[in-house]
Amino acid sequence: MITINENYLKLKSSYLFSDIAKRVNAYKLKNPKKEIIRLGIGDVTRALPKVCIDAFHKATNEMAQDSTFHGYGDEQGYLFLREKIALWDYGKRGINISPDEIFISDGAKCDTGNFQELFSNKIKIGIPDPVYPVYVDTNVMAGRTGNFENGRYKGIFYLESTEKNSYVPDIPKKPLDLVYLCFPNNPTGAVITKQNLQKWVNWAKKNKAIILYDAAYVAFIRDKSLPQSIYEIPGAKEVAVEFRSYSKTAGFTGTRCAYTIVPKECIGYDSKGKSHQLNLLWNRRHTTKFNGVCYMVQKAAEALYSKEGQKQIHEINDYYLENARIITTLLKELEYKFCGGENSPYIWVYTGMNSWKFFDILLDEAGVVCTPGSGFGKCGEEYIRISAFNNRENVYKAVDKLRKVLIKYKLK
Amino acid sequence: MITINENYLKLKSSYLFSDIAKRVNAYKLKNPKKEIIRLGIGDVTRALPKVCIDAFHKATNEMAQDSTFHGYGDEQGYLFLREKIALWDYGKRGINISPDEIFISDGAKCDTGNFQELFSNKIKIGIPDPVYPVYVDTNVMAGRTGNFENGRYKGIFYLESTEKNSYVPDIPKKPLDLVYLCFPNNPTGAVITKQNLQKWVNWAKKNKAIILYDAAYVAFIRDKSLPQSIYEIPGAKEVAVEFRSYSKTAGFTGTRCAYTIVPKECIGYDSKGKSHQLNLLWNRRHTTKFNGVCYMVQKAAEALYSKEGQKQIHEINDYYLENARIITTLLKELEYKFCGGENSPYIWVYTGMNSWKFFDILLDEAGVVCTPGSGFGKCGEEYIRISAFNNRENVYKAVDKLRKVLIKYKLK
Repeated sequence: MITINENYLKLKSSYLFSDIAKRVNAYKLKNPKKEIIRLGIGDVTRALPKVCIDAFHKATNEMAQDSTFHGYGDEQGYLFLREKIALWDYGKRGINISPDEIFISDGAKCDTGNFQELFSNKIKIGIPDPVYPVYVDTNVMAGRTGNFENGRYKGIFYLESTEKNSYVPDIPKKPLDLVYLCFPNNPTGAVITKQNLQKWVNWAKKNKAIILYDAAYVAFIRDKSLPQSIYEIPGAKEVAVEFRSYSKTAGFTGTRCAYTIVPKECIGYDSKGKSHQLNLLWNRRHTTKFNGVCYMVQKAAEALYSKEGQKQIHEINDYYLENARIITTLLKELEYKFCGGENSPYIWVYTGMNSWKFFDILLDEAGVVCTPGSGFGKCGEEYIRISAFNNRENVYKAVDKLRKVLIKYKLK
Repeated sequence: MITINENYLKLKSSYLFSDIAKRVNAYKLKNPKKEIIRLGIGDVTRALPKVCIDAFHKATNEMAQDSTFHGYGDEQGYLFLREKIALWDYGKRGINISPDEIFISDGAKCDTGNFQELFSNKIKIGIPDPVYPVYVDTNVMAGRTGNFENGRYKGIFYLESTEKNSYVPDIPKKPLDLVYLCFPNNPTGAVITKQNLQKWVNWAKKNKAIILYDAAYVAFIRDKSLPQSIYEIPGAKEVAVEFRSYSKTAGFTGTRCAYTIVPKECIGYDSKGKSHQLNLLWNRRHTTKFNGVCYMVQKAAEALYSKEGQKQIHEINDYYLENARIITTLLKELEYKFCGGENSPYIWVYTGMNSWKFFDILLDEAGVVCTPGSGFGKCGEEYIRISAFNNRENVYKAVDKLRKVLIKYKLK
């Protein structure tokens, strides 16, 4: 008799964004004529950069001829793309990453979800709260947790991000083996300073722990004093794996390309204490369970690494940052407490009310979709996440509609 | 201290096709001027069908404008593609599969590799020998096996495919919970009759087992009496998950698109004997760890579901089948024993010699790359796999070069 992985039964019944979609669909059925503005899921809305479009067409034409056709590429990604990443995203910032430390994939969601497979099920994990649900759910599926009780899974050490610590988790007092960090943060929009990140790296080295550093939003950093890669921090290559994505950087949410850096210095231990390069283990996983990213997509990503490509990315992200500025201007004016919206496309707003209740109010009374903070963890209760990914016209409309509702429900 | 998943240490040091690549590279260094013809890895060589190229350009142009841009799609794939699959690949063959039983992915390698995650680690698994290594390695990584000893992993029940059973494994006499089958087979090129497949379905129903049916090569079936889907077999929807791919069907090895059918009737059990729909479990896995396939790629796949698209696919696959015919004609002439090459792009040749030794002979003396049969399992020892994926000119050249070497090393 075939028995299932019962860890799946521990999972909450469905995924945050499916829940939101259901409520939005129910609202649409009831209010078929009302306009809905989506500032919920962090999905980009602007066209792909022109350099990518051109590269896509060119690569497609190559695929149209036997003589220039491309079949399987290396599972790790084409060298043409990995060399560009090593140079532009790292070398030019003084960080030495070699192409064989870079693994191209179809998404940071997959990579951050899959990376935990390399580790023993006995490790102690630290996951931020609030957090992108994928880090939690994939560890639940793997059997590293107990049941979900009172809003949390037994067996996970939650790294709380609150107003008190400016939404940057404190260094844990107890030893942990694997820690997830994400900066600029999803969902809080918080950023981390080099000084604070150095503390995490030092802690990881001391504890022989690994940091999974999700840097999917680095393209929104405008403050030059902030780290754009964890490898700007001395010692990080020994303890950190970094995840990057073109999804938010270059509007690739529907195009699918990302990459993960696994430095050769980064090691894990077997039960006899012998050390093993995570780079080799991830290489084995990646080549066994993955078959590379679409050739045209890799050519489109490569096109971003040019003066013109970088300029086009910068313009697109400035556009979203300006959206965020427009929204935070309203929040400041109405004296709402919030985090983010600078160096980040996300704004984390304190509402003083049950998150889903506030979600429903914004949907019902303003036609605006946000994300309820509690969907990201217990510390997200009473918060909502507003995303700056939309067009300017919609953002202005949303601000107008939100103004009335936010005034009405403002905390006394 | 971070400890690793020690199951990875059980894996043989590297992946079959990386081993081959290393030997080929070494040969190239030694013989820089000699031509190499690759009939090893099963990679297509012909251009994408024209309908796909056109769809690709059109979809790329949509991505170039904000108003027609596509961000995240459903993780399960766009409905436009799932509806076409339901109609063309199933409905038109009298099989009722609904779009929510279809999950689009970036490759059958990923899907066949990941599907085992849904099951308990205690299940008994049956894996063919010889076999596509991914089924084995992903179960090793998951911890369902013991160590590798004498060419096999402890804890796997090997379903032997030999000349004796015409390379179609016998129904196991002991109960198993999960069985992998692949027809037309990789690597043997064997096909399965409806009658034999019915026996497997009956066995699975009786044992409450699940069959993971890899149908990545169905597009090569020309004999109309053979099943193109396991769901042509009565009762199969209760016990079988089917994997399909555009890689070999439409030359998508570098473009990346596949799909998996998980019928709602298909169930697994928890330890209390309660039944659970695998469809819901896979949906949870797919939406948590995957973020959908590139929009342009899905549009290109959709374009195949038209009269013209089907014609173009058929022509491409006929071309490879003709390559196979040319190669098998030589083998017949030289009275080599082989399987496949009809209704399949693979030819499984008995050499009577150590597989890697024969691989080296073909490389050194003919400049032809094949795949050593032992790389697919113990039963593959003394066999080689020849793939028909190449252009006609190279196939003729290869046949000329092979002729001399095959005559020289022919079994007496």
